[in-house]
Amino acid sequence: MKLGVCYYPEQWPSSRWATDAKLMVDAGITLVRIGEFAWSKMEPDMGNYQWDWLDEAIETLSNHQLSIILCTPTAAPPAWLIQQYSDILPVDQYGSRRRFGTRRHYCPNNPHFRLHTEKIAAEMAGRYGNDDRIVAWQIDNEFACYLPRCYCPLCVDTFQSWLEKKYQNLTNLNESWGTNFWSQTYTNWTQIEPPNLTVAEPNPSHKLDYYRFFSDTWVSYQQLQIDVLRQHITSKQKITHNIIASLTDIDYYQLAKSLDFISWDSYPTGYQENLAHLLEDTQTDTLMLASDLGHPDLTEFFHSLTRGFHKSPFWIMEQQTGQINWSSYNTGVNQGAIRLWTWQAFLSGAEAVVFFRWRASRSGLEQYHAGLRKHDGEADIGYNDLVNIKSDLELMDRISQDKSSRQVAILFDYNHLWALDLQPHRKGFSYLKLAFSYYYALRRLGYEVDIVAADSKLDVYKLVVAPTLVLGEKSLANRLSGYVKQGGTLLVGIRSGFKTETNLATDLPLPGVYSTLLGTKILAWQSLLPGLSYGLKTSLSINPLQASIWVECLKPLLNVESIIEYTSGSYSGYSALTRNKIGKGAAYHLGWYPSTAQLDGIIKMISEDSLLPSPESPPPGTSLFLRGNNHIYLNFTNQSIEIRKEDSIFTIAPRDVLVK
Amino acid sequence: MKLGVCYYPEQWPSSRWATDAKLMVDAGITLVRIGEFAWSKMEPDMGNYQWDWLDEAIETLSNHQLSIILCTPTAAPPAWLIQQYSDILPVDQYGSRRRFGTRRHYCPNNPHFRLHTEKIAAEMAGRYGNDDRIVAWQIDNEFACYLPRCYCPLCVDTFQSWLEKKYQNLTNLNESWGTNFWSQTYTNWTQIEPPNLTVAEPNPSHKLDYYRFFSDTWVSYQQLQIDVLRQHITSKQKITHNIIASLTDIDYYQLAKSLDFISWDSYPTGYQENLAHLLEDTQTDTLMLASDLGHPDLTEFFHSLTRGFHKSPFWIMEQQTGQINWSSYNTGVNQGAIRLWTWQAFLSGAEAVVFFRWRASRSGLEQYHAGLRKHDGEADIGYNDLVNIKSDLELMDRISQDKSSRQVAILFDYNHLWALDLQPHRKGFSYLKLAFSYYYALRRLGYEVDIVAADSKLDVYKLVVAPTLVLGEKSLANRLSGYVKQGGTLLVGIRSGFKTETNLATDLPLPGVYSTLLGTKILAWQSLLPGLSYGLKTSLSINPLQASIWVECLKPLLNVESIIEYTSGSYSGYSALTRNKIGKGAAYHLGWYPSTAQLDGIIKMISEDSLLPSPESPPPGTSLFLRGNNHIYLNFTNQSIEIRKEDSIFTIAPRDVLVK
Amino acid sequence: MKLGVCYYPEQWPSSRWATDAKLMVDAGITLVRIGEFAWSKMEPDMGNYQWDWLDEAIETLSNHQLSIILCTPTAAPPAWLIQQYSDILPVDQYGSRRRFGTRRHYCPNNPHFRLHTEKIAAEMAGRYGNDDRIVAWQIDNEFACYLPRCYCPLCVDTFQSWLEKKYQNLTNLNESWGTNFWSQTYTNWTQIEPPNLTVAEPNPSHKLDYYRFFSDTWVSYQQLQIDVLRQHITSKQKITHNIIASLTDIDYYQLAKSLDFISWDSYPTGYQENLAHLLEDTQTDTLMLASDLGHPDLTEFFHSLTRGFHKSPFWIMEQQTGQINWSSYNTGVNQGAIRLWTWQAFLSGAEAVVFFRWRASRSGLEQYHAGLRKHDGEADIGYNDLVNIKSDLELMDRISQDKSSRQVAILFDYNHLWALDLQPHRKGFSYLKLAFSYYYALRRLGYEVDIVAADSKLDVYKLVVAPTLVLGEKSLANRLSGYVKQGGTLLVGIRSGFKTETNLATDLPLPGVYSTLLGTKILAWQSLLPGLSYGLKTSLSINPLQASIWVECLKPLLNVESIIEYTSGSYSGYSALTRNKIGKGAAYHLGWYPSTAQLDGIIKMISEDSLLPSPESPPPGTSLFLRGNNHIYLNFTNQSIEIRKEDSIFTIAPRDVLVK
Repeated sequence: MKLGVCYYPEQWPSSRWATDAKLMVDAGITLVRIGEFAWSKMEPDMGNYQWDWLDEAIETLSNHQLSIILCTPTAAPPAWLIQQYSDILPVDQYGSRRRFGTRRHYCPNNPHFRLHTEKIAAEMAGRYGNDDRIVAWQIDNEFACYLPRCYCPLCVDTFQSWLEKKYQNLTNLNESWGTNFWSQTYTNWTQIEPPNLTVAEPNPSHKLDYYRFFSDTWVSYQQLQIDVLRQHITSKQKITHNIIASLTDIDYYQLAKSLDFISWDSYPTGYQENLAHLLEDTQTDTLMLASDLGHPDLTEFFHSLTRGFHKSPFWIMEQQTGQINWSSYNTGVNQGAIRLWTWQAFLSGAEAVVFFRWRASRSGLEQYHAGLRKHDGEADIGYNDLVNIKSDLELMDRISQDKSSRQVAILFDYNHLWALDLQPHRKGFSYLKLAFSYYYALRRLGYEVDIVAADSKLDVYKLVVAPTLVLGEKSLANRLSGYVKQGGTLLVGIRSGFKTETNLATDLPLPGVYSTLLGTKILAWQSLLPGLSYGLKTSLSINPLQASIWVECLKPLLNVESIIEYTSGSYSGYSALTRNKIGKGAAYHLGWYPSTAQLDGIIKMISEDSLLPSPESPPPGTSLFLRGNNHIYLNFTNQSIEIRKEDSIFTIAPRDVLVK
Repeated sequence: MKLGVCYYPEQWPSSRWATDAKLMVDAGITLVRIGEFAWSKMEPDMGNYQWDWLDEAIETLSNHQLSIILCTPTAAPPAWLIQQYSDILPVDQYGSRRRFGTRRHYCPNNPHFRLHTEKIAAEMAGRYGNDDRIVAWQIDNEFACYLPRCYCPLCVDTFQSWLEKKYQNLTNLNESWGTNFWSQTYTNWTQIEPPNLTVAEPNPSHKLDYYRFFSDTWVSYQQLQIDVLRQHITSKQKITHNIIASLTDIDYYQLAKSLDFISWDSYPTGYQENLAHLLEDTQTDTLMLASDLGHPDLTEFFHSLTRGFHKSPFWIMEQQTGQINWSSYNTGVNQGAIRLWTWQAFLSGAEAVVFFRWRASRSGLEQYHAGLRKHDGEADIGYNDLVNIKSDLELMDRISQDKSSRQVAILFDYNHLWALDLQPHRKGFSYLKLAFSYYYALRRLGYEVDIVAADSKLDVYKLVVAPTLVLGEKSLANRLSGYVKQGGTLLVGIRSGFKTETNLATDLPLPGVYSTLLGTKILAWQSLLPGLSYGLKTSLSINPLQASIWVECLKPLLNVESIIEYTSGSYSGYSALTRNKIGKGAAYHLGWYPSTAQLDGIIKMISEDSLLPSPESPPPGTSLFLRGNNHIYLNFTNQSIEIRKEDSIFTIAPRDVLVK
Repeated sequence: MKLGVCYYPEQWPSSRWATDAKLMVDAGITLVRIGEFAWSKMEPDMGNYQWDWLDEAIETLSNHQLSIILCTPTAAPPAWLIQQYSDILPVDQYGSRRRFGTRRHYCPNNPHFRLHTEKIAAEMAGRYGNDDRIVAWQIDNEFACYLPRCYCPLCVDTFQSWLEKKYQNLTNLNESWGTNFWSQTYTNWTQIEPPNLTVAEPNPSHKLDYYRFFSDTWVSYQQLQIDVLRQHITSKQKITHNIIASLTDIDYYQLAKSLDFISWDSYPTGYQENLAHLLEDTQTDTLMLASDLGHPDLTEFFHSLTRGFHKSPFWIMEQQTGQINWSSYNTGVNQGAIRLWTWQAFLSGAEAVVFFRWRASRSGLEQYHAGLRKHDGEADIGYNDLVNIKSDLELMDRISQDKSSRQVAILFDYNHLWALDLQPHRKGFSYLKLAFSYYYALRRLGYEVDIVAADSKLDVYKLVVAPTLVLGEKSLANRLSGYVKQGGTLLVGIRSGFKTETNLATDLPLPGVYSTLLGTKILAWQSLLPGLSYGLKTSLSINPLQASIWVECLKPLLNVESIIEYTSGSYSGYSALTRNKIGKGAAYHLGWYPSTAQLDGIIKMISEDSLLPSPESPPPGTSLFLRGNNHIYLNFTNQSIEIRKEDSIFTIAPRDVLVK
């Protein structure tokens, strides 16, 4: 476990650098990320490269045994470049060309921008690619933030080429998009526009492809930089990118592929405030949590999600260290938070935690965003927490000898996510929310959970949960079938198999290609108005015995068991949960949108059935991790929490970590 | 009573057509609407017309004795046409040119589009205009949906010409618009821009004329097609257009004039969800209604509204058959709904009910929109309902021998509506809502109600209600006067006579030109803040005795009776409801915004006064129609409802129809 | 005290003018404002000036001894001018060029518009500048209403020049804006764009300068007109502009400087409805107020604010006279309101009250806006109120012999306001709201309060309150220090000293340059989530003993007293209110966002400490002013209110004024 910090030497007098370096080392920091957003300092005018200041900064930091993470500065192209090529500026979905003055003001398909990206990356890599003091490269910063997709004329052209490559001919595209609906048939590739500013909501197949195209665009823009870097750097230097895991505009599985490892930027209070809709089902539990720590299960959900993107351990490239400035209330943060978050990241598999940022910025948008040091250079609460973290490092090292063996996985797929979110059909329906509700229920029961790609290796898991498989993919059905036959347990949720891979509605009886796997036919489905629910009947302990939000009327096929039935409404007598035993395993099909309380009962039943060991449930307000014989409890409340275990009683102090 | 279905043969393999046709016939369907949105199939490239597929589709359907409603496909111009003439694309009120990719992406004033409209219409009419298998033509689809008005440069020119024709000279326009306010005087027609993107809210006279201009534009664009069709078709073929009755951007009285009959697209759950603000005053009653049937009075309100647009019986050209995809929650729909809606349409005067759509679409925006058949071709709940409807048809035929004699009418006028809605003055004030509250109160009392144009024949009614007559029109005042003198009863609501026909404030004492008719002077008026009300005093049974929302201080003129007075607030002692007996009839002037509960008492009083027979009130949750001696009850709840009548008791089953 | 009225003779037949003039005189009116918005009547075509109608109007009014306030008509440039130079039309922050059709459709930096402004102003001044019947000139109308800032290409150029003048060289600008953040360094003045359409929220230094630039633009555009007028007019004619005091886009201290006096447009019900968020903390008191009178403390806050802009007495240039048309509910207004408002304006220091408007407009946007006379020419409630006001005038004159001696002032500064509002950091945080909460608390305690510029003479006040001093200004710190040393009492609130004058975060320990003055160090600060608070401990009577919204952890420096301490949360034991005695006075530093109830206790303590006399508190629902020995009570409720004083009891009638 390594500690790092994000540092912007260009914002402070060079005379301060050594002092800062010493204070970093004092706090246990060994890594420093620099260079991000410093393009105009590196290249003040076109072709006029200035490296002296960076040389000096690296020298000063290295003299204190700090290792460097160097960033390509492309997230903030300088004013002179924008003035020269104003078509670098992106066009938003309303058709407005945006302006210079903040960051991320570029279209990643713009050839001028791509050329100058290559140039600056080549210059940097040429200079520092063989320098052992640099241990890693970060490419750009938080792709797809603010404007996930550009709609400029160059993007239109590129989209058309992308489509031509994908579909080869227009007949294929027209069929794949179902353009016989509303006369949308294309007779020339150049007729195809991006799906913005349409009169009504666009064709979901068209829009899904624009999402895919732009996800590919970010991957390709990143690859451009990777290719340049690889030409110059040694194999000791690793390449990464720092994602915002809560954004869902890029298929991060794809983005992570050519990287050496993936990183993400973790801001627990920000996600808690801005993603409050994901937490609606956790209200009761949430009440007792300390309000300034974020929601631990939500933070951890994103840790687990990121962990699944790449086989190497992930990094936290930006770890919140105090109040942020981009949520509604920007809650203050108190002592202990940063230590808890660091422990949580570590236990979730992070190999390094890089704190954002060293010192609060005096200028620009992030002035009210805390750093480890205040504007005046004095220690802020984050720095004070570091003292305690430093003394934890040895314990962490010991714990990290024991690997977690996670036996449960959630399938998470961006194509399915986009397809669902493009047509939620019911206000509030969101793939992320549905996936989180499963994660939350599993974690409250004590399971440690992986989140994995649809094409990942599943046989290491006893239980795999697919909250939904909205796109019908034959190969996926086959893979899941194989997994179950060999003894795996699979739980599949609502809306599965409704669509084809190009986002048409399937013409197979539902659940389409998953019908054999699940052993069901969905006779009908409904969105229920708020307040409306259908009764349920079962011998399981499910509470409440009512299905709301979304219901599917399941008919078990031959030899398939019905475990829960509807007792009221149109589907009365039909099944709401089924079990299909195939081979050595079983596939469960869940027919309604479960509350996390209902999932509790369902998962317990499934784990009994499948002989999945039941872990210890953490007390409300805590998170629990098992490493070897160590139970590690994190207390996310401001109260002491008592644990009674067999004959012993012990207490976790407020906001503290306890290893037992 | 005929049953039909909307069919899109171009979306399915021709090999399936015969199967579909047979299934239609089995369910009692005799009409099939086709051709809508199929332009790119009919004319894949400019001038390259392809009719074979349509010939075959018509042939197949006709072979099963199905009659055809053929649609001009102009609501969805093909990509090649847009690529050729990109100025066909409409410009929205924010000044953005919209893009190809859905439907209704055209400016109806564009000359290229009008030319190609004529061409395709002429081609179709030339080919099928003499074909007895075609019984009707539908022009385009749902004019004014999404973008009711275009603001492109061509529309600016056309607007200026329209104004020049209307006002002849600028002096007249300047006076009619009151341009001496804020220096808005025009000295050249070309100075007049559309009323969008103004710095403040535009001049109401200016804006009202743009509304009128664009309503005329749609009428004119429709006429272009009618003229082409009439040149080719036989008189057996009827021409219609399918409106969205809940949209108020077109004067449908004008639009209906040159048609042979009018049709509308009825989606009860959609209107219930999206027009919830119209139902605020019906909350208590609404609670017992089945949530998936829509609000029966609201659905019927639009039936009655549409019935008033044309003297021929109207059609339902699209009847909801299951869940829709364009409201917030898109509630599921259960068995029995489609039958109830068909009965309700029939009893409201529909001559045909055409179900939307045959089979759920696999592609495009409406994938989650149900059809009679599911995506996989199997029966959905709508198809199953058809079995029951089919067996009702004979009974309907018998009932339809007896005509309804509606003795009550509501005056509904688009110019008044626009004038009011352009200046609601108080948040939530809406013409449609006000009109619906009267309709609702009358229907709950058991009256069957016509909704009629201001220039329609009134003497067939015992009672005419004008919820408001905001525009002062002398000729209307005279006609209403004549109606009352000859024995009619008139009830006129708030804000009447406030404006001139060009939407200036009148300089006459209020209610302006209606003062003699109503026998009142409005001394003052007020919008009341939420929660505020003035007391009322009357011998009538009015509950609650409080006026809220909007109050007018009425002073009865000589010989005019005051029936209700204010007892608190500024208007204490002045009148809130008056009766002016003139000739053989009486004109009532109501001075506040009545709740539906208050209207109950007022209408009862008026019907006693005017010897209007009191009908039987339907039990809450039901609708009641009288045809000859038949009382037809529709039960819109999920409970059985008991009716006690004289000595007999009978029961209407949930979601059922009962004829007694 | 003079009464006036806004009159638009161009909107009514000249035959009516004499009647109107007589009715004005009957009601006690002596001033008439005309000419506003009449450009197209004065100059129907370019260079074609028409003054006969205006001559006649002035003649008619003067014949009735009415004095004239003449307006330059530039707020409404005519259609012909816009058609000739369409780039006069302003561009909004979304990049849309707005259209002709209402008012204020001009960019004040446009050279064509500035030229034609000079021409029309010169023509008017040349003709009427030497005319004794004209007593004052109003320039334009309500600068910055609707579109406070333009973003057209000309504004971009002008902004660049403004910056060049301010910063001299780019190094200076880059440092002052901190452009080393996110690579925002400029290497050419022409690279600098306005801060709209940026990808993220723009640099606060950049945005603050655009605010300053545009405030200067309005000042400069006004100066253009003043310069022209001064060339022609006699010194008897005074120049003013009528501001909207609730708008905060112009530094009105600057705008007022070259005027002879300042005026504002007072619409109590409009501000009450539209600025409801400012009143959140006054809910309980507000309940008893008559709903149609506006909130008296809010109205008076704007009177006091305006009074501080210029050393001459201010005017109400538009006084509401009945319902308005631009809030949500546009509440009706009842008898007595206009008299109360006039008294309140008089007691707040207004020298004249000009009623808006004479007669309700028949055309344009303001049709539903009341005047003294209704559309039909008859008296509306405002005119009836005038009768009573007229008979009050003598009493007012007597009272005005005694000047108010206000001993308390609130510091109000637009640069601080902009800096705070650009980065509220916490939802709902607003400078205006914070300032109003202090004003409200002081007024409820009975203090009459001045609101003054940061550079104004403070030694006339016993107590000066700075709700916040967010920008650290050394000279201000020195002046405040001087004020305290000489015996003044200063209370300074949260967020003080956080920023530099160019809106960077200070690198000094907080409160930065105010640290010596206040004798504190702010160790930390937090925004608290809604519902969260920290306990407080004090011997004062403070209720509730809880700090919420925003807390700062104060450490008193040597010899500085702590008066209130935190008892829970992170800051437990640290100070929340301190007193620093320096010289003969004391500076208090308040560390949290106080409720008005808490301010009550704090102010009482401070006034005891500082020997500031405690005034009589007005009963809830009333306002109280002291002039000489006269206590003047205004009753803003619909109830009689009893006052018990020593041995006497007296009663203020509802909506009445009582002088005791």
